Amino acid sequence: MLIKRKIKTMRRAIISSTKLIMFTILSILLLAACGEQKTNKVAAVGAAEPIKTYQWKMVTSWPKNFPGLGIGPETFAKYVDEMSAGRLTVQVYGAGELVPGFEVFDAVSQGTVQMGHSGAYYWKGKIPASVIFGAIPFGMTTSEFNAWLQYGGGLALWQELYKPFGIVPMAGGSSGAQFAGWFKKEINSIADLKGLKMRIPGLGGEVMKRAGALPVTLTGGEIFSSLQSGAIDASEWVGPYNDLAFGFHQAAQYYYSSVWHETGTSLEFLINEKALASLPKDLQKIVEVAARAVNQDMHDEYNARNHVALKTLIEKHNVQLRKLPDDVLQELKKYTEQVLAEQVENDQGFAKVWQSYSEFLSSIREYNDLTLKEYFQHR
Amino acid sequence: MLIKRKIKTMRRAIISSTKLIMFTILSILLLAACGEQKTNKVAAVGAAEPIKTYQWKMVTSWPKNFPGLGIGPETFAKYVDEMSAGRLTVQVYGAGELVPGFEVFDAVSQGTVQMGHSGAYYWKGKIPASVIFGAIPFGMTTSEFNAWLQYGGGLALWQELYKPFGIVPMAGGSSGAQFAGWFKKEINSIADLKGLKMRIPGLGGEVMKRAGALPVTLTGGEIFSSLQSGAIDASEWVGPYNDLAFGFHQAAQYYYSSVWHETGTSLEFLINEKALASLPKDLQKIVEVAARAVNQDMHDEYNARNHVALKTLIEKHNVQLRKLPDDVLQELKKYTEQVLAEQVENDQGFAKVWQSYSEFLSSIREYNDLTLKEYFQHR
Repeated sequence: MLIKRKIKTMRRAIISSTKLIMFTILSILLLAACGEQKTNKVAAVGAAEPIKTYQWKMVTSWPKNFPGLGIGPETFAKYVDEMSAGRLTVQVYGAGELVPGFEVFDAVSQGTVQMGHSGAYYWKGKIPASVIFGAIPFGMTTSEFNAWLQYGGGLALWQELYKPFGIVPMAGGSSGAQFAGWFKKEINSIADLKGLKMRIPGLGGEVMKRAGALPVTLTGGEIFSSLQSGAIDASEWVGPYNDLAFGFHQAAQYYYSSVWHETGTSLEFLINEKALASLPKDLQKIVEVAARAVNQDMHDEYNARNHVALKTLIEKHNVQLRKLPDDVLQELKKYTEQVLAEQVENDQGFAKVWQSYSEFLSSIREYNDLTLKEYFQHR
Repeated sequence: MLIKRKIKTMRRAIISSTKLIMFTILSILLLAACGEQKTNKVAAVGAAEPIKTYQWKMVTSWPKNFPGLGIGPETFAKYVDEMSAGRLTVQVYGAGELVPGFEVFDAVSQGTVQMGHSGAYYWKGKIPASVIFGAIPFGMTTSEFNAWLQYGGGLALWQELYKPFGIVPMAGGSSGAQFAGWFKKEINSIADLKGLKMRIPGLGGEVMKRAGALPVTLTGGEIFSSLQSGAIDASEWVGPYNDLAFGFHQAAQYYYSSVWHETGTSLEFLINEKALASLPKDLQKIVEVAARAVNQDMHDEYNARNHVALKTLIEKHNVQLRKLPDDVLQELKKYTEQVLAEQVENDQGFAKVWQSYSEFLSSIREYNDLTLKEYFQHR
C-alpha cells in the first residue's frame, strides 16, 4: 500500500514539471521495489504516459466540516479521489474562505471554481423555481423528493433551470424533515406569530410574513448572536444534530419539533458545465455516482444523529420540546397555498416545475398515507 | 464521443493479443483524428501499458432484468463499467441461469462467482441473524435501516456475520415498505387466518404460523400459478410495482396494503472477499460507492413506480384494496414479539445484532413519531 501511495504522490508532483530525466531515474528506482504488475505500470508511465490529472475547487455555503452539511462535500471529495486514483482531486472550501456562502452559485457559473455545494433555495432571487429543489412548505419528504428527482422528471427540469448559467446541478444530500425551530416564547395561537422577528429563509419566510411575523435571512453563523442579543425572537436552522452544534439551546428555551416549512430539505452540488465536459467519460461518471452516494450518505448521517442529539438537548440541556398547535399549522398551510399560487402566477419557470412536483406529490402522498403513515400509527 | 468509444473498444481487443505492430499502425491512424491529449494517451498504451482488466460474474435471486430487484444489479454493473473505463466488468445472471436463486450465497462463498445480489433473509437457515438485514416484522423503515447500517453500527455487525463464509455484504437497494399481500378472501378477524395457505417467507412466515396460517416458501416465479391453481390462498410479494409485473391481480381479488411483515425490505450485494481484495484500491472503492448509489437508486425507483402501479391496479384491473383490521395487526405484533424473543434466546448471533437494531429502532421511532408521523397527519 505504502509503495502504491508513494508512486501516486510522486507521479503527481513530477508530471507537472518537465524534468523527464529525473523521472526516468526515479522510475527505475521504483521498479526495483515493485512486483511485476506494478513494474509494468510504472514502466508505462516512465515511457510516455502523462496521466492527465484534474484539480478542482469546491466552494460551499457552510462552515468547513460543519456536521452533516459540511461533511457531504468532504465525503464527495474523498470518494472521487479514491475512485479516480488521484486523477481528480477536489479541494473543499468553507463559506467565506474563497467566496461568501451566498455567492457559491455565481462563482460556479463564472467558472471561478469548478464546483459548489449549497442549497437551491438560496438562489430564489435569480431563479424563483430553484426553491422547489431546496425546500417547499408542506412539500415532499426526502424519499419522495429523491424519487421525483430521479424517476419523476425532476432532475431534467432542474438541469434546464440551471443551464442558462452554465451549471449542472446534482442532488447533494438531505437533512431530512426539519424542526420548526427555536422560540423565546411559546406559540399557542396564530396571534403569537404577529410581530415575531424570526430567521426563516425561502418560501417559509413568505408564509410567516402573511401570518404577521417579520422574517429575516441570516447565514447559519449569524443566528446564535442574533438570538442571544434579542435582535431576533426565533429562528429555524436544521434539526437537533445541527442545532446542538450551534448551541441554540443557550439562546432560546422552546424547541418546536413540528415539520412544516422544510419537509425534506435537499442540498445541491453545482458543477460548472464546461469543467464537467472537459473530464474524460470515466471521471464524469465518477462525479455523478459519487454525488448519488453522498446524497444518501448525508441523509443516513442526519437520520442517525438527530434522534441522539434530541435526547442530549432534552436530557442534558433541559430544552423545552413543543409542538405547534393544529390550528396554527392549518393557518400556515392556508398561507402556503396562497404563496405558491402567486409564485405560479408570477413566474413561468416556477409554474412549469410546480406542475410536475405537485402532481407527483399528490399521487405519492396518497400512497404513503396507505403505507408509511398507517405503519407509523400501528407499529 | 464515438472516437473515444472506438479507442476504448480497440484498446481492449488489442491488449489481449500481442500484435504490437498492428497496434502501432492503428495508433498512428487514430492519432491523425485525435487532439493532443488523446494522442498521448493512445501512444502510451501503444508503448507498454498492459491495462489489467477484471471480468466478474454476479448471480441473482431474481428473473433477469425484473423491475426494481433485477434492475439494481444491472445498474451496478453499468456504473462500475463506466467508472472504471471498462477495467472491471460485471456480467449479471438471472436466477437459474448459472445457479438457482436460493444458491446465490453458496456460489459467492465458494468463489464460483465473484458477486451475488439477493435478500439476506433467504439465508436464515444458515445464519439466523441474517433476517435482520433483510426484513423484520414491525421493524425499521428503509431510511431508518440505512441510517442504522451506515452510522449505527449495523454494517460492521453484518460484515462480522458473513466473514466466516468469505463474503463481504453491502446494502443493495430497498423495495421500501411492502404490502401485506394478495388474498382470495377478505380478512376480517384473526380467525380468518386460521388454515390459510400463504406464501410468506422469513420471520413473517413464523408469525403467520402462530396466527394459525400455513406459511409456505416459494420463489417469485412460482407464486402466480400456485395462487391460480388454489395450491395457496394468499401470497405476499413486494408491492404494486412488482406485483403488477407478475399479474397477481388475475389470481386473487383482494389486495391488502397494510405494512407489517416487511417494513423497509433491504436487498444485498454479496461479494467474495478474495475477489474484492484482489482488485486495486481504486476499483475496490468504485465497487463500494457504486453499491451505495444503487442502494438509493433502487429505492427511488420503487418510490416513483409503486404509486403509479397501484392506480393502474385499482383503476384498470378493478383490484379491491383493503386494510388489515387493527386488532389483526395488534395480534400479529404480539406474535412477532414472541418470535423475536425466541430467536434471541436460541441464537447468540441473533441476540447480538438484535440488541443493536432494537435499541436504534426504539430511539429513532420516537424521533420519527415527532417528525414524519406528525407531518403525515397534518400535511
